[in-house]
Amino acid sequence: MVTHPAVVLVSGGLDSATALAIARAEGFACHALSVDYGQRHIAELAAARRIAHSQGAIEHRVMRVDLAGIGGSALTDPTIAVPESPTAGIPVTYVPARNTMMLALALGWAEVLGASEIFLGVNVLDSSGYPDCRPEFVRAFEALAAVATKAGMEGAPTRVRVPLIEWTKARIIRAGIALGVDYAQTVSCYQADEQGRACGRCDSCRLRRAGFDAAGVPDPTRYRAL
Amino acid sequence: MVTHPAVVLVSGGLDSATALAIARAEGFACHALSVDYGQRHIAELAAARRIAHSQGAIEHRVMRVDLAGIGGSALTDPTIAVPESPTAGIPVTYVPARNTMMLALALGWAEVLGASEIFLGVNVLDSSGYPDCRPEFVRAFEALAAVATKAGMEGAPTRVRVPLIEWTKARIIRAGIALGVDYAQTVSCYQADEQGRACGRCDSCRLRRAGFDAAGVPDPTRYRAL
Repeated sequence: MVTHPAVVLVSGGLDSATALAIARAEGFACHALSVDYGQRHIAELAAARRIAHSQGAIEHRVMRVDLAGIGGSALTDPTIAVPESPTAGIPVTYVPARNTMMLALALGWAEVLGASEIFLGVNVLDSSGYPDCRPEFVRAFEALAAVATKAGMEGAPTRVRVPLIEWTKARIIRAGIALGVDYAQTVSCYQADEQGRACGRCDSCRLRRAGFDAAGVPDPTRYRAL
Repeated sequence: MVTHPAVVLVSGGLDSATALAIARAEGFACHALSVDYGQRHIAELAAARRIAHSQGAIEHRVMRVDLAGIGGSALTDPTIAVPESPTAGIPVTYVPARNTMMLALALGWAEVLGASEIFLGVNVLDSSGYPDCRPEFVRAFEALAAVATKAGMEGAPTRVRVPLIEWTKARIIRAGIALGVDYAQTVSCYQADEQGRACGRCDSCRLRRAGFDAAGVPDPTRYRAL
């Protein structure tokens, strides 16, 4: 059996763990990529390592980019608090151009590997309303990739696969469980502590908990005492 | 006078030094951005610092991204030689997705600064034929930026300004000299030594030297003995 390579962006959270399981199930040789961008929830990266291993990625690379230096987000600037109740509009946890930057790194690596697919676990339904999690963002990035690279110029543009984009969190969880994902390994919390224990209050924790409830699955998340 | 902020990508080379001078002449408060991506011609970054200072940028930021880890280019993989005579097609000095990644970083910083313009010194005429130096690449990135960011969603998308894109190298040099650019400060060579001295043989050196010849301007480049 010939396996084709794919780059899979793995954050350490629930969605990207599921995207990795789907890519694996489709038969891709998965090269997992995580980006250390100075996020406050650094326990994510330890989770990404566990998931890449348990989901059979053939390698796991962590690339560093110092977005904390430019700030502008509650996730990269320690002086901006993570909201613990819903807010109107795009929340302060939005990180300017983060998914553009992560896809750019994935695109470069994909070209070096000869991979024609990048898997990205974005989701627009049960999400925080970030601009760079929407279908129009993904389509625009694919259009860019088609003209940005040598592979694209030579007629083999890179696709961006977003299998979860229109799924509910409950559907994502059920699909992942069917594929053997152990969600206890994942960390979604925006302010997880060093052991990866979740706050249970931030937007990401609320969406995750509601997803397990709706899926009728026990929530395996480790919450810390607050 | 109100000055608007702009992010200017400054590599240390001739083209981006000229783009910075043009942005300055248009009245922008210029935030210079250089990317240390593991390039072999690291003397570029020292040149970028000199140019940002002499051309009046209000700050200069160097962001690091480890593209050397993924390789795939003569500029990031020391085992791939820089060609010293013309080659057919896109040369091995092409760095996969480099300009996509640099624009992504500039886009994030622009959004934090409230800057609506990014200046990029790409040029399609006297260039090495890289895919990500072409007008269609720039247009596709602008289309992406319009949907990728909060600013874009709110109706203030970031523009990518490429004043040199259809200029000859000679025209770029004449424009820069008229604006006071000291090209002796710039380093274009793909394999410059630590002092910034050029090889005189690589594609970038050839294009630069031919530009000074065509402009009728003495070439201020420091070449090393080979």
